[in-house]
Amino acid sequence: MAKVQLGPKTSLYPLPTLLVGANVKGKPNFMAVAWGGVANADPPMLAVAIRGSRYTHQGIKENGTFSVNIPSAELVKETDYCGIASGARGDKVADCGFRIFYGTLGNAPMIEQCPVNLECKVVHALELGSHTLFVGGVAETHVSEDCLTDGRVDVKKIRPIVYVGEPAREYHGVGELLGQAFRVGQELKGK
Amino acid sequence: MAKVQLGPKTSLYPLPTLLVGANVKGKPNFMAVAWGGVANADPPMLAVAIRGSRYTHQGIKENGTFSVNIPSAELVKETDYCGIASGARGDKVADCGFRIFYGTLGNAPMIEQCPVNLECKVVHALELGSHTLFVGGVAETHVSEDCLTDGRVDVKKIRPIVYVGEPAREYHGVGELLGQAFRVGQELKGK
Repeated sequence: MAKVQLGPKTSLYPLPTLLVGANVKGKPNFMAVAWGGVANADPPMLAVAIRGSRYTHQGIKENGTFSVNIPSAELVKETDYCGIASGARGDKVADCGFRIFYGTLGNAPMIEQCPVNLECKVVHALELGSHTLFVGGVAETHVSEDCLTDGRVDVKKIRPIVYVGEPAREYHGVGELLGQAFRVGQELKGK
Repeated sequence: MAKVQLGPKTSLYPLPTLLVGANVKGKPNFMAVAWGGVANADPPMLAVAIRGSRYTHQGIKENGTFSVNIPSAELVKETDYCGIASGARGDKVADCGFRIFYGTLGNAPMIEQCPVNLECKVVHALELGSHTLFVGGVAETHVSEDCLTDGRVDVKKIRPIVYVGEPAREYHGVGELLGQAFRVGQELKGK
């Protein structure tokens, strides 16, 4: 297979679709983020990359806390809106009709309608250029009661949004099952 | 909606499915990684979280470089195998039939069968506890020629794998289109 070189890019597929929240000047604000993921298992940590010019960035710096909210497929319009609009010029929470709650950290705002909410305390803020990579220790995980099955998170009930970036810039659902992790590769073992 | 608290967790959905590569003692090795993402736009950077005990971790430390390879749905078995087996006890490249190539960095091994390959040079290695978060500057992006449409990456041809973690532990395809990013939220603007 011939390979074509495109220069240094951020061509990673697929990515999650997240709503990162922070209080800015005491008021909750959220932005859509695809550049976020898990950073550590023990203790549990997440990392999110936020452009320095974003209003949310200011809030994270102010409080040293942020939240990561996982929107479900039915919140795709509200999620996209939080990626387009700026909290500096309006109230995204009111525009989206989000109901806000706070948890153990006290100042990381979370969205009740999002099935999963993780509150984080900043442990590292790496200035990488255009973006700051905020690494946050997870203080608490909140899950909507109706997204649990037998007390465990049921991803089929969460219906998270897959982000497919440049050049497509599309939101997708989670598609067909391809295989069970830590199992489907077993048949290659001992080959 | 009532919320249930699960304690500090890494409950992020969905995640990407990546194959991270490094030379270890001069030989190419790969591991499956869901804890990876984009860290910066300008200059382009990626971040991957690797457990300190992994063989690949040793290789990244050795060379200061790694690759991120995006497997397509038809490589799901090989990908999972790279998450189960250890390069310390076998040759995963041979077991999977991977054809290896090198790029501009010279020592970050890449998999020809993966439609997208990003070679990275470590700029930060954050020791977070169980994992090291390696932040790498992208030196070059390689894309299989048949995954381009009019010279641009065509994600429909890549067919990347979505990872749905605990407790499901499943690989999925990218599902139905929910909306166009930076567009579907426009109707909430000026509400």
